[in-house]
Amino acid sequence: MREAAPTRKTVLRLGHRIDRDKRITSHLGLTARAFGADEVVLSGDRDPSPLETWASVSERFGGRFESRFEPKPMSLLRGASKEGTTIVHLTMYGEPAAEAIPRIPIDRDAIIVVGGSKVPGEVFRISDYNVSIGSQPHSEVAALAVFLNSWIGPIDEDSRFSGGEFTIVPSERNKIVISHEEE
Amino acid sequence: MREAAPTRKTVLRLGHRIDRDKRITSHLGLTARAFGADEVVLSGDRDPSPLETWASVSERFGGRFESRFEPKPMSLLRGASKEGTTIVHLTMYGEPAAEAIPRIPIDRDAIIVVGGSKVPGEVFRISDYNVSIGSQPHSEVAALAVFLNSWIGPIDEDSRFSGGEFTIVPSERNKIVISHEEE
Repeated sequence: MREAAPTRKTVLRLGHRIDRDKRITSHLGLTARAFGADEVVLSGDRDPSPLETWASVSERFGGRFESRFEPKPMSLLRGASKEGTTIVHLTMYGEPAAEAIPRIPIDRDAIIVVGGSKVPGEVFRISDYNVSIGSQPHSEVAALAVFLNSWIGPIDEDSRFSGGEFTIVPSERNKIVISHEEE
Repeated sequence: MREAAPTRKTVLRLGHRIDRDKRITSHLGLTARAFGADEVVLSGDRDPSPLETWASVSERFGGRFESRFEPKPMSLLRGASKEGTTIVHLTMYGEPAAEAIPRIPIDRDAIIVVGGSKVPGEVFRISDYNVSIGSQPHSEVAALAVFLNSWIGPIDEDSRFSGGEFTIVPSERNKIVISHEEE
């Protein structure tokens, strides 16, 4: 049996503002990681704080999640589009996720674009799919979580997030955390 | 045919901090609204800003979503629990959502508790369900969205969010907003 070539799912955060978006952007990257993306790319204001949070969580809770800053996000999208990477733009104006998701190939590289305050019109045009998680204003964090959960599906956390310092064990009543530091 | 008595789904935000959580809490309430909750209750620091955001979005985009500040959230939970309201606590330490959700009654009033920085141990004990959306650290906004989306299911937006000033029409390429102000 041959294994399928691994594909790369990237989340691109557009238009980060250091003064307003620190925690939303931080949550966005953690959501990308927890719901199965391989990488988060930060653009907008150059801000080390979310990158530090993402690296710290990956170190403590395991897995191979990557993150970096990208000064030219539109160049990244143009290059990726030419190379055949699928571009998905999450926007409240897009077509309903239930209609789009079954058509978005899971076996190819993809960039999921998550807007900030003002998204350039080119993003709507360069994207293969403009997808809405409902047509109401809510949160890019909510939209990303529901999109990835539906598109990628349930994550095998034990295998995906191995190698960390801590593992949380699900429990109906208690906080159970296994520390691997002594092993 | 008799219509089932309407039930009330409330989201309770614990431990809001005015200096750090403004936008996360704001997104949390908008997510509650967009994914079918009837009400969000703010506790922790008394902060008018998220309440204003929620009221403004409801006015512009329709529906009957309510919001208020609650100075004594634990009293609220104790009283609700005695009256038979289901208490669901979203926590990364809880039992997996896939196992819990089928058991959580949809036809009764419920309070979904979403923690802030430090959640009192009593919340774990008073809750009928401590539910995790994955056992990785991510975001209370992501957790609430995925929980409500799975538990309540798809929202009929046209009927739920009627009476607003604007309606967004899903589109593959364009921003289409209908303004009802002239009607």
